[in-house]
Amino acid sequence: MRIILDGMGGDHAPAEIVKGAVEAAALIPHELVLVGKQEAIEEELRKCKYTGDQIKIVNADDVITMEDSPVKAIRRKKEASLVVALNMIKAGEGDLLISGGNTGALVVGSRLLLGRIDGIDRPVLASIYPCLGKEPSLLVDAGASSEAKAHNLLEYGLMGSIFVEKVWGRQNPRVGLVNLGVEETKGTAVTKDAHQKLKVAPLNFVGNVEAREVPKSACDVIVCDGFVGNVILKLSEGLAMNILKVVKNKLMTNIKTKLAAVMLKTQLMELKSDFDYEEYGGAPILGVNGAVIKIHGSSTASAVKNAIIKGIPYGEENVVETIRISMLDLAEIVGETEEIAEE
Amino acid sequence: MRIILDGMGGDHAPAEIVKGAVEAAALIPHELVLVGKQEAIEEELRKCKYTGDQIKIVNADDVITMEDSPVKAIRRKKEASLVVALNMIKAGEGDLLISGGNTGALVVGSRLLLGRIDGIDRPVLASIYPCLGKEPSLLVDAGASSEAKAHNLLEYGLMGSIFVEKVWGRQNPRVGLVNLGVEETKGTAVTKDAHQKLKVAPLNFVGNVEAREVPKSACDVIVCDGFVGNVILKLSEGLAMNILKVVKNKLMTNIKTKLAAVMLKTQLMELKSDFDYEEYGGAPILGVNGAVIKIHGSSTASAVKNAIIKGIPYGEENVVETIRISMLDLAEIVGETEEIAEE
Repeated sequence: MRIILDGMGGDHAPAEIVKGAVEAAALIPHELVLVGKQEAIEEELRKCKYTGDQIKIVNADDVITMEDSPVKAIRRKKEASLVVALNMIKAGEGDLLISGGNTGALVVGSRLLLGRIDGIDRPVLASIYPCLGKEPSLLVDAGASSEAKAHNLLEYGLMGSIFVEKVWGRQNPRVGLVNLGVEETKGTAVTKDAHQKLKVAPLNFVGNVEAREVPKSACDVIVCDGFVGNVILKLSEGLAMNILKVVKNKLMTNIKTKLAAVMLKTQLMELKSDFDYEEYGGAPILGVNGAVIKIHGSSTASAVKNAIIKGIPYGEENVVETIRISMLDLAEIVGETEEIAEE
Repeated sequence: MRIILDGMGGDHAPAEIVKGAVEAAALIPHELVLVGKQEAIEEELRKCKYTGDQIKIVNADDVITMEDSPVKAIRRKKEASLVVALNMIKAGEGDLLISGGNTGALVVGSRLLLGRIDGIDRPVLASIYPCLGKEPSLLVDAGASSEAKAHNLLEYGLMGSIFVEKVWGRQNPRVGLVNLGVEETKGTAVTKDAHQKLKVAPLNFVGNVEAREVPKSACDVIVCDGFVGNVILKLSEGLAMNILKVVKNKLMTNIKTKLAAVMLKTQLMELKSDFDYEEYGGAPILGVNGAVIKIHGSSTASAVKNAIIKGIPYGEENVVETIRISMLDLAEIVGETEEIAEE
């Protein structure tokens, strides 16, 4: 397979992207294509002392910045690295795209240039939700659309389930709907309706999940609208950082606590790495005709490398085709359920 | 003033409610009325060796349980302690009501029996949001209504601001709207509209607040709909407990870490108490014609005592009347703004 990297996307691009590609190339047999300003990328490759032919460069003179308006940038900056990269996926010249650039542009660009999978109303950005001491969950929607209809939430659950099964290799992933309580009568009109839809869908629906249970790995796929998803992700990050800061201050209180901190060095390092998103790889865009992965704008070479390696099954396992077929199956099930209801 | 306590509301009622009342009575000059089963309450008072006349009992033979449907219970259980207590507030026989019973019944009962303040579309339950190492914030809505219109969010901000100023004694409280980003163009149609309404309202609006900033005391009043409020409260609780559990496990790893834990005893106790909601008192219902405070169902005597003492200004400071006048002022401001917009 051939993996396309947006060489110019991210706070530390192209340096960290190129370094990450070089590190990954040493570990996998696949071809890697860096899309971006040829000279800048060549210079970074020289710095890495890379002389192989597993990494290729495709020149793209323009860059979409974090300040660019997503829709305008995708439409007007035809020579931007992200647009060139997406067009390569569209043309079948690559199997997987990884970018750390403007998130809005990546989501919009994927929708506009790759198009939606047949039967999918709304493609979505997922996110990895770290659960301390346990395997992470996949949260869908991470903020691509602030509002959602019930059938969108159903799609999120179905696509998330397929991704977690095929890419993360978990059998029969547990899909949960974020809601006010576990009872199916709880919530808004939308979440109540979504609950009923998820219940009959061909997936392992474990029912409503209260926000309190989310950090405890209550399910493999966390389904919610983008507003709630944004709140869950940002709040978790802010609160965890705040708690760690307070703990750190308490450890610095006096000689005795400082000594205790030294004695706890290994455990404190473990705790810090438990919060580290980077080792899990990137977050997928789901529902478009292509395998696209978003990495943090601040990704280091190590994060880039992890995203490449962990992302390979997304390009290989034909997730897109499975989603397309599942949507056809779902349409049949929904049709049958409606017929039964009418009888 | 006279403080009414729902003597039967809560997991440890009447024992802990009575004990809390006795503890509070020793510290304040106000009359305390325990509403509930006379014999059970008298027995608890005997256990506390209370012989004064500052605490009175009003008999109520029935109890609303946690399993009762709120609307039905309020309508049918006329002799329940909560219904009797609310009717005393309505009749002017008490200035402040505190209950640890069925939350839904308390919210619905306050709306039905006390009625909304003129100009308020929707009364709401607020909650105290603890910010580690800083003063807590007031979160409105804590889950009373899962959806909200823009004018509801405006009301929440206004009522929360008045409460925090009058009851917590903070001058010019900072009111923030939970949203996807700080820019006023971010969010759903509802949050965008609410932003514009809060901007012209007579309060200290600090703009949109991202969920990441909520735990850092970004504002004194956190405004959001009840679904998002529920997610913020429950997720924070679940995540904090999860982190503390992991920290505890790490401290139990081996002899060295256990020794470090002993050395950190004071700091660990401080950390635990930082998460303790009880010391801040109860959470107000805002927008009804009466001062009503909700305490946790699991409240201990100490939490009951704190809720009484911290709640006194809610009964004394005429918060209800201030909200009523503010809504009149607001109607004028909105009218003027609309006239200017039309010109």
